[in-house]
This record gives sequence, structure tokens and C-alpha cells, in this order.
Amino acid sequence: MILEGNSKLKYTSASVHHFSILERGEQRLFLRLNRMKKYILCFWIGILFGVNIQAQTFSSPNGQLKLNFTIEEGGSPYYSLGYKDKSVVKNSKLGFTIKPSYSYDSEFKIENIDYASFNKNWTPVWGPNKEVNNHYNEMLVHLIQQKTGWKLDIRFRLFDDGLGFRYEFPIQSELRHFTINNETTTFNLGKDYKAFWIPADYDTNEFPVSTSQLSEVSKLIDDARKESLAAKAPSKSLAVQTPLMLKSQDGLYINIHEAALVNFPAMSLTLDEKNFSLSSNLTPDKNGDRGFIQTGSVSPWRTMIISDDARKILSSNLVVNLNEPSKIEDTSWIKPIKYIGVWWEYFTGGGSTWAYSNNQDIRIGKTDYTTLPPNGTHGANTKHVKEYIDFAAENGFDAVLVEGWNEGWEDNQAYRKEHIYSFTKAYPDFDVKELQAYAKSKNVKIIMHHETTSSVVDYERQLNDGFKFMKDNGYDAVKTGYVGPIIPRSEYHDGQWMVNHYQYVVETAARYRIMVNSHEAVRPTGLYRTFPNWIAQESARGTEFESFSGNKPDHTTILPFTRLIGGPMDYTPGIFEGDLSVYGNNKAQLSTTLTKQLALYVTMYSPLQMAADLIENYKKYPDAFQFIKDVAVDWDSSYILEAEPGDYVTIARKAKNKNEWFVGSITDENPREAVVNLSFLPRGEKFEATIYKDGKQASWNHNPKSYEISKQQVKSNETLKIKVAPGGGFAISIKALK
Amino acid sequence: MILEGNSKLKYTSASVHHFSILERGEQRLFLRLNRMKKYILCFWIGILFGVNIQAQTFSSPNGQLKLNFTIEEGGSPYYSLGYKDKSVVKNSKLGFTIKPSYSYDSEFKIENIDYASFNKNWTPVWGPNKEVNNHYNEMLVHLIQQKTGWKLDIRFRLFDDGLGFRYEFPIQSELRHFTINNETTTFNLGKDYKAFWIPADYDTNEFPVSTSQLSEVSKLIDDARKESLAAKAPSKSLAVQTPLMLKSQDGLYINIHEAALVNFPAMSLTLDEKNFSLSSNLTPDKNGDRGFIQTGSVSPWRTMIISDDARKILSSNLVVNLNEPSKIEDTSWIKPIKYIGVWWEYFTGGGSTWAYSNNQDIRIGKTDYTTLPPNGTHGANTKHVKEYIDFAAENGFDAVLVEGWNEGWEDNQAYRKEHIYSFTKAYPDFDVKELQAYAKSKNVKIIMHHETTSSVVDYERQLNDGFKFMKDNGYDAVKTGYVGPIIPRSEYHDGQWMVNHYQYVVETAARYRIMVNSHEAVRPTGLYRTFPNWIAQESARGTEFESFSGNKPDHTTILPFTRLIGGPMDYTPGIFEGDLSVYGNNKAQLSTTLTKQLALYVTMYSPLQMAADLIENYKKYPDAFQFIKDVAVDWDSSYILEAEPGDYVTIARKAKNKNEWFVGSITDENPREAVVNLSFLPRGEKFEATIYKDGKQASWNHNPKSYEISKQQVKSNETLKIKVAPGGGFAISIKALK
Repeated sequence: MILEGNSKLKYTSASVHHFSILERGEQRLFLRLNRMKKYILCFWIGILFGVNIQAQTFSSPNGQLKLNFTIEEGGSPYYSLGYKDKSVVKNSKLGFTIKPSYSYDSEFKIENIDYASFNKNWTPVWGPNKEVNNHYNEMLVHLIQQKTGWKLDIRFRLFDDGLGFRYEFPIQSELRHFTINNETTTFNLGKDYKAFWIPADYDTNEFPVSTSQLSEVSKLIDDARKESLAAKAPSKSLAVQTPLMLKSQDGLYINIHEAALVNFPAMSLTLDEKNFSLSSNLTPDKNGDRGFIQTGSVSPWRTMIISDDARKILSSNLVVNLNEPSKIEDTSWIKPIKYIGVWWEYFTGGGSTWAYSNNQDIRIGKTDYTTLPPNGTHGANTKHVKEYIDFAAENGFDAVLVEGWNEGWEDNQAYRKEHIYSFTKAYPDFDVKELQAYAKSKNVKIIMHHETTSSVVDYERQLNDGFKFMKDNGYDAVKTGYVGPIIPRSEYHDGQWMVNHYQYVVETAARYRIMVNSHEAVRPTGLYRTFPNWIAQESARGTEFESFSGNKPDHTTILPFTRLIGGPMDYTPGIFEGDLSVYGNNKAQLSTTLTKQLALYVTMYSPLQMAADLIENYKKYPDAFQFIKDVAVDWDSSYILEAEPGDYVTIARKAKNKNEWFVGSITDENPREAVVNLSFLPRGEKFEATIYKDGKQASWNHNPKSYEISKQQVKSNETLKIKVAPGGGFAISIKALK
Repeated sequence: MILEGNSKLKYTSASVHHFSILERGEQRLFLRLNRMKKYILCFWIGILFGVNIQAQTFSSPNGQLKLNFTIEEGGSPYYSLGYKDKSVVKNSKLGFTIKPSYSYDSEFKIENIDYASFNKNWTPVWGPNKEVNNHYNEMLVHLIQQKTGWKLDIRFRLFDDGLGFRYEFPIQSELRHFTINNETTTFNLGKDYKAFWIPADYDTNEFPVSTSQLSEVSKLIDDARKESLAAKAPSKSLAVQTPLMLKSQDGLYINIHEAALVNFPAMSLTLDEKNFSLSSNLTPDKNGDRGFIQTGSVSPWRTMIISDDARKILSSNLVVNLNEPSKIEDTSWIKPIKYIGVWWEYFTGGGSTWAYSNNQDIRIGKTDYTTLPPNGTHGANTKHVKEYIDFAAENGFDAVLVEGWNEGWEDNQAYRKEHIYSFTKAYPDFDVKELQAYAKSKNVKIIMHHETTSSVVDYERQLNDGFKFMKDNGYDAVKTGYVGPIIPRSEYHDGQWMVNHYQYVVETAARYRIMVNSHEAVRPTGLYRTFPNWIAQESARGTEFESFSGNKPDHTTILPFTRLIGGPMDYTPGIFEGDLSVYGNNKAQLSTTLTKQLALYVTMYSPLQMAADLIENYKKYPDAFQFIKDVAVDWDSSYILEAEPGDYVTIARKAKNKNEWFVGSITDENPREAVVNLSFLPRGEKFEATIYKDGKQASWNHNPKSYEISKQQVKSNETLKIKVAPGGGFAISIKALK
């Protein structure tokens, strides 16, 4: 059953004026003010410059993070944050301005404050760990504007690894609906940080990541924005996307993002480069409106993960913890998937096409495809798909993705056309029934593809029929695509309207027991906790770019610190033949060594993992391919062994319900020696490790396909030191010796 | 079965380069150039001022209308039109400018010209006449731009009562998609006309009609635009809506409109007040785009109905003839409807409400209405609806409209909220099943109401479920509503996107065998021929305005010449109690006498007619009510006896398959004597006429409810002269004497 809406809000009592979030199967411990002995309270009301000032401080469970909340002169709410006695966020404003023109960020006074504490484990449907601890202290501030009577609540949660806070708009007689003009929320860092950033853009997250000091963003951003992408809508201000990864000169790591983006526009961050202050830049629609709000709702959480150990950024569960528990009660049909697909051949330059014919003048529902001459290059034909099904069955893959199965691809670049595709009509050479039977006989699933070319209302019109078609024909997962500018033409990919659309698709899919892997959608914010059928997203620069403008060798050392903070990515690794000139005129070269591609199955967490290369290439390297066959896609535990954004990542994970471990380690363009401390293995037992590492002369740009595979016995008290080539990586599979 | 798309285009051959329109069950006579003896041909190609000039003239079947087509200097296509040797349209430009920035209205040369003639009757599913003659000569000009290779066809049809022409965009390799920047089409009248106009507005057609010379529009339009309406988007230019009714000082009547508005924005007319030239002003979206076109399609027809007899404007079938034949094959389920409804009570000021509760903080799908305290004023409650069903059954009405039956009305003015209503969830006091059984037992249908508050995508999301709910519960007609600004927020009511939406609703409804009566939609263009389940529309200022800002006494003498040119209107006449102060504080006064309300059932043709007043008022005037009970809603033949826009209309109609005739006659604020020539009756037979006319002292503003009813014997060779009061009217029912 799907429960609708933002969150299960329960309006506890009119006199208390606050919401409580009830997590299913969990208990909430409300500790009232007078019982909270461990908080350092400094609540005081005084007269200073003739203005009421109210301030309040509370701490994370381990006491290392301290948040101070004040009402400043003019009645504006501010907060500041300290970590281990360092200032992390200087006094920073909170609130909104709303339309037509009114302040919702000043003239406030504190009406009441509630405190709470929470500590409970929960079990995700899938994830890097089989259990997640959710432990925080909470402060809920109830504000009221005297002049208007408008109320605004701000809920802060301090975890040991960071802060989350959100706005709550209580039901109130004086304010029922408003339009956001601007969100005032500021993260006043007060000093320059090294930043891993992409330009703020309302239509895409597919830029290459830039690494620079915050103070250098302004001189780099124009160049960064030149990247050619199918849809772009740059923010007018000097701004960057979230998740934004920051590192201070003295070794503090901060990740700024948001959690539970529901019925709200996505936030990017406008940079004040003089003060090193970041402030919320909500995605507008084309009329300049930044969200339509009915009171009785909440904003997404604004999040900061903070640590002096980069590995703790990667192991943080803060974002997912700030999302609501699953709204899908029976999740038995949701399963991690390892898959291959009729896909990379469209990018290689080898001539395979999504389109069945060369006639671009087609019209869905009118054109009779059986009368069109086939172009002879159509990838998704029955015979070819059967080859993929055979290969999947032989090598233990769960599924085969097939792109280009449906009518419409001939005219798929007509971005202003609304009815581009049918989602129920296959091309004449794609035999739906025959393939259904064939796949079933081989115990392989076919993954449906719904490219919308961002004609979103047309997709919604076909959505139920499309999902019904899937279930009638044995499909239970769909890859959706949103290439190009959005129709409705008032909207951007990351605006409130589209945020609601993605959720609508995921909720509708859940009714059909369909898993969703959305490409080119807004970047994730941990909503997979609430909708675990949202099994992966793209929403960043994936492997496909290796076939045109390329990825940089440090790209996948940054993504875990940025894009993956919100949720799993369908990065589609596994490219063995990185020299695309073998297929024709495409001169693109992969940015990694071959074994770095193997490592990505571990370093890029996702319950949906593709082996993206052509079958013929896997057949050429059966020994290396063995790792892809073996590697798990669901896990009991994960161990971040080494991590530095932009430089390297080494991660070990234990396969779910199996005594098997997998290690992945990657580096940027610089070679290094990775240190794999095997203490994650059970003590005293013996294991066999199969190591897939770069050859001695390997490097991403000169010798990417040089690798060595070796086996050795290992124990938990050992440490492996493994050389990693420039742009290289290695993978290890570990099994218990019997 | 529904056949999709604009029109049944058949691409006959690549060498001929033209489309032919095949009308179902009809034959087309193509007369090639060399066989067309009756046309005055003056095709010549010469060198004049160093430029190729090409010109071509052809005529209407009776020869009274002559059209001249030329390519002028610069390669721009022009046309001019003459009627009985008077110039009606001076040389006027044709074509488009398209985006990013290119001319599609110059640099053309004529590639080829085809001629055709057509004369055939067809049978509408419903209409003012049981058979319609479609008779025209046609000239199809094939143009090509030398520089770009772009092709453009212009198809002209001359009927005896006017002109239709449209643009056809052939499939061509050099132009597959384009965005319209502007349509160049001009109607250069060359002299001042009296005009019956409303201001051009992309969101509404509900302005009161102004009557002035074209030369006076500019000084009147600002005031006209001040009218308070729920959604307004005035055109930036000095422009008026179509259908635009014009009259010259020497007695020529011209009506300018469009036919078959499909996948295109609606046209208004920009006025050049110096030259008395009107030019197409297509409704843009909010990004300023005026239509997204894929070649292999056509524009709507631009139409001019022309006569020196105003009655011929009203009897013209030109607009409907230019629409495609029905795409619905089995139309047996489509039936004209006379109905009453739970409706007027929401406007009277008597306190009845659409909303069930006074809690505006509702959320559809979350709010449990059974827990809300009812407000006690909810109109659509089971008991009250049963009273309407009883009254309908007792008085021979087919159906009862019920507004306010569904969840959401409490927050129905939240124009920026997307999910306002449920279309499947009734209020707790509206028992769907009980009312279904009750209505069925009385042989009465309930008409569904779908007010969308213009949250259109949300409506589309619920559309199939809403229609399924209707069929499951015995409803087979829906009144849709589009109050307020449109969501998607890039769109206007009259833009291409919404034009497609209305059609999508009508086509989807047809699949469920549901009839549609759309309110606040784009004004009709004869599409009811193609989709005869589109049984009526509002799209003009209807009776509801009599309850607030009012209608003028001449209003319904103009509407047949303007709004009704496109198709039937759900005007909802039949108000007997015109003094709304009897209900409370509403000081509004009806603009007609009581018997003028009766006349409207004949003068305002519609297959959907409401008796809009409260039951209690019909019970007070049972003798006058008898006419509403008797009057037909479907007809064999119609006779326009007298007509002058803004002054008076007298129409007689013969009931379908019955020997019964009904006459309606109305006047504006001036009294007059109507002349009813009974020659439409069969010769030699005797009939009894029941005459419902204004009382001797009646007038709309002082004594509206004074009327007289008399019976008399009549024959076809007689003429009745009947006095009509200021703002008055009369109705006659005629039956054969046995």
C-alpha cells in the first residue's frame, strides 16, 4: 500500500503547536526541557539595543557538534554551528521571502521550543549495510510573527556526523497558501574551502566536477558551463549544485546537501565569494516562482555531514535517516539487480541505432511501422536481444536492459514535439511475446526502457498503460529517461513540478510492483528509504560520457562524496574495451584502466549494477570478467578503508547473507599504493583472495588493459599493500577457505 | 473507434506534392486545370519590375465570391477577395515567421496549383438541420522557397457564403519541425466596419460584447478589459477575439473565425486601426512560442462568412463543413439532452455551497471527510439531488447536473495548488450508489461535474479513473470546468497545449462513451462534427453572469453571430426569478423578460439545454414552464426568419422526427414588432400555435415577469406580427391539429 504525501504528520495538539514524526515500528523518546540534563542550556531573554533576543544551544549525542539558535535584531532567525570547538557555520540566516512580497524570515519571536532525542536501528530493504542506526538530538523551534500572526517552525537534528534542519509550515488560519520567492537559508562558512563542485543548473547534473577553492569558482564557472549537454538552464547567480563536498585547509570535511526532497524545488547554493557564505538557491519555474506551498507541510531537510575523517563522510547515514520510512509495506518484490544490456553499442560509434527506420517523419499512432523500410542497424531486434538473454543466463546476470524497443526513436531529437514515443508499441522486429517466453525460459528478466525526451505530460498520459504493458509482458523494472528540455515548458528538471513528477512515477510504479531507475532526473536525496522501488538514478555524469566528451580520471573518486551522498547511481561501469576507435571513427578513450572498471562495482554503491560493455569484449577477457560475475549487488556491511575526495577511495563490503567479501580501490591520475587492512574479515579464519590489479606498466591513457590476476591466502590480521596505476584501480574477491 | 490526429491525410504521391482530404462516405471530384471551364483563369507569369509575379483567380460555385492569389515582390503570398463585385478583402499577406528567426512568408514561388470542386450532403449526429450541404470550389497552391527548399501549401475553399483557407505543411526533407513566431495572415478590410467584439485574451472569452466601429476599438478596449474574470491574459496588441462579427455601412455582413482548431493555438485578430486591417494573433505560451509544428500537418482554416443578408450568417454551415467527418464510428450513444441541475442555487446568494465543510485546510487523499463537521449548506446532498431527480422525471427532463458532489471544494480558490479535487471520491452526504439506483428507477441520468480549477495535469492524471468511475455509476455526460489560470504554468486556456488537452479529454471520453460539455475552454471551431460527443461548450459569457456583473439586453442577439458560429453553447437559460434579492443580499437583476428566457431555447441552438432556475420558481409559473417542457433539443430543420446582430433574432425550428415546430424571437433593449412568416410549415394543413409573449407593460428592467400565453390556429400562408417588449422575447410552440 502506498501512503500518500510528504510525511506522516500528526498534529498532536493545538496548544503544543508542533508536529511529531512517527517512524513505523520505532519509538520516540520525548525528553522535555526540564529532563534534558545533558544539554547545555543557555535560554535567555533580554533587552539588548531595545530588541528581544532569544538564543538556544543544543548538541549532538556525542557532544562534538553544537548548534546555537538566535533571534536577531529585526526578528530574523539565525543559527551557528561548532564542531569540536571549531566554528563550522558562523551566524547564518534562516527563513523565506514569499510572494507577492513579504518577509517570512524576520519579525519573528520564539513562541516555544521542544526538545527530543532518538536512537534506534532500522533495516533497509537494500543498502550498503543491513542495519542503519538513526541517532540524534532534536530541537524544534516554534516561531510566530506578531504583525501577521504567521507561524513557522524550524526542526533541527544533530547527529554525531552532522546536522539536518527543515522548515515546517503549521496549519494556521492566517496563512494557507504561499509562493516562495526565495529561501533565505544560509551556510556562512566564513573561510575559503576546497570545493568539489559543478555549476548550478536547473536542468542537469551532468557537468564534469571541478575542484578548486571556493574563492576560485567565479573565475572557473563560465568555462565549466560551456560543457555541451542536451538541456541546460544555468542559474543566474554564481552557484553550485549539491551535494557539495568541501575540505578546509586544516582537514575538516563538510558535505552540504538536502534530504527528503518532496513537493519542493531542488536547492543549489549561491556563493558569496567575499564572505565564503553559501545560501539556498531554489530551482524556479520559468515564471520565477520557487515553490507553491500549502501550510500543513514541511520543507526538505538542509543537511551538513561534518567530519575530520573523509571516510566518515562516505559512511554517513545522515541523509537517508532524515527520510521517512518505507511507504511500501510489502517490499518482497524489490530486489537488487545485476544486468547487461543493448545499450553501449549505441554509444560506441559502431553503427547500432535505437531507431528501426531512417524515416524521421513518423507520427506515433499514425505511422504504420510495418510499412517502413528497416534501416538494418536497429539494435533492439529479437535475435540480438536473445543473444543478450543467452549471455545473461550463462553468466548469472539477473536481467537485460533493452533500449530502442519502442516506436518513436526516428524523431527522438525533436525536443519541442510532445508525442514522440509509444510506451506500449514495440518495433516490428522486437517480438515482445517471443522474448518474454524466451527470457522466462532462461530465468532472465528484461528491463523496460522509457525514454521520455522530457515530454513529461505525454509520458504521464501513457504511464498506466505503459506499466500495465510491462506487467502483462513480464517486466518488473524500468529505466526512465529525461533527455532534453521539459514539457510542460514552464518547468525545469529540478523544479517542484518535476520533483513531484518523479515521485508520481515511482509511486505509480509501486502500485504495479515495478522498480524504477531514473536517468536525467533531479539528483537523489535519500528518498529510496521511503520508496525502495526507486532502486537507482543517474543524475550525474555517468559512463556514457566516456564515449563522447569524456570523464576525468578523478571523476569516480569524487562521485561517492557528491552524487552518491543522495543515493545509488546507475553509473554503468564494466567497460573493458576503452578504445572506441576499434568500432569506427569515435576517438574517445576511457579514463580508467580495465581493473579500475572492476573496482567501481564496489566503490560506487548501487543495488543496480550494469556490466555495460559489449558481450564480445567480455568474451575476450574471461578472467577479468569473472569478477563482474562474482561481485555482489546487495550487502551486509560496508567498510570505508581509505578515502580522499578527488584522490582515492578504497572500500570493502560483505555480500548479503554470504561469507564473501569484495574490495574495490581506485585512484585519480596519480599512481599510489593502497593499504587494505583486512580487519573487516572474521578473526582466526582463512580466506582466499583473488586480486585483479593493474599491470606493472598499466596506466589509463597509455596501457589501460594491462592487468594481473593473482590468488593468495589472507587473514583478518593482515594488511595488503597494492600498487595502483595512474587512473587505475583494483578489485579483490575474498571467499572463506573450506 | 477513434481515429487519431488532425485529419485523415493521405500523401498521394511524391511527384504531385499535395494532400487530399478524404471525407468518409463522400466522393471527391477533382477537376484538373484543363477541365475547369467555369473558372475565369488568369494565370500568368511575367516579368514586372524585374520580379516574377504569379497570380491566380477562382470563384465560389455561384460566382459571387472571387479570390485572387498572387506572389508579390519579395516572394510573399497575397490574396484578395471580392463579393458581388465589391472588394471585401484587399490584397492581404499570408504565411508565417518561424523561430529562431526566419521568414516562411516570403521568397516563395508557385510550384504548382491544383483545383477541385465538391458538392455533397452529409448527416450530422445532431444539429440545427438533419442534413448539411457542403459545396465549394477549391484551389490548392503549392509554394516553394528557392533558398531553403522549404515548401508551403495554401488550400482555399470558396463556398457561396464565404471563404476558408488553411496552410498545409508538407512532409519535406529540409523542414521537419518548426516553432511559429507569428502568423502573417491578414484580412485587409480597407474600410471601417461596425464590430461586435470582445478584447483578445488568451485565458478567457467571458467578456461582455462591445459594439462599435473598428475605429473606436482602441479607445474602448481598456475599459472593456477591466471586467473582473477568474483568469485573464490580455494580448499585448490591440486585438479582438473571434468569431468577430462585422457589418459595413452599406449592409455587408462578415464573420471572421477559424475552423478545425487542432494542434494549433487559437487565433485572435490584431487590429491595424489606420488601415482597417486585421491580422492573425496566435495565442502564445508564456515563453512567447505560438505553436510547435511537425511537417505533414495543417493549420486550422481561417474563415470568412460573407453575406448582405444577416440571416445567412446564422444559417451558414461553412465552419462545420471545414471540419473533418466524425472520427467516432458508432455514435448511437450520443444524444441531445434537456436537463436541470443543482447549480443556480450556488449563484443566487441563497447560501447553498459546493463545499461540504468550512475547513479550508483539506488535502485530497489525506483528509478524512467523514471526520469534518459538515457546514449544513452543502447543495449536492443525496436528499436534495433526489428532489431534482423527482422533478426531472415528472417534467420530462433527461438529466440532472450535480455540481459540488466531490471532495475538494473547500479549497477551490487555491489557484496555485495542483491537487485540488478528487474525481472519484464523493462527499460523505452524496451517496453515489443510492443516487445511481434512484435516478435509474426514475429513468433520469445524472450529469457528472469535473471542475478542474485549471489544474490540468492533475485532471489528466485522474482522467481515466474519473471516467471509469462515471461509467461504473451510470453517468454518461460530464461538464468540465477550467476556472482560473492554467497549470502547467507555461500555458493559457487558448494556446496549442490546452487546445490539445481539450481534444484529449473529448477523445478519451469517447472511448468511455461519455459526452462532454466543456466550460471555460477555448471557443469552438466546429469540431463537434469530428467529435460529436463534444456536445456543447460554454466559452462565452453565459447566464451565470446574470447573478453578478450582469449581461446586457442585447447580449443574446449578438451571441448567435459570434460565439455560436463555432458551435453550440451551454448558455443555461430558463431563469424565471430574475430578481436575486429575493434570496438574500444579491442585488443582481436579470437582463431579460421571462418569455425572452423561453425564446432562448430556440434562438440559442444547442443539443444540450438547461432549465437553470430553481424548482420552486418553475412551480410558481407552470404555464410558462410548459414551453420548456415541450421544446425540442434536436431538430430536422431550422429557419432564420429575422436577424440583425445586436438588435433581434427570430428563428423557427422543426423538432426532429416530429410534426412540432418551435419559434423563438428576442430583441435587445428596444421594443419591436416581430414578423413571423409561417411559410416553413407544410402547406395546406392546420396547426395550433401556443404563443408565450411579453405582457403589454413588460420590460426587462421594470416588469420582466409580465407575460401572456395564448393559443391560435395557424397555417403556412400566414404571418404573425408579435410585439416584443424592451429586453423581451417570445416563444411559440406549434403542433399539427389532428
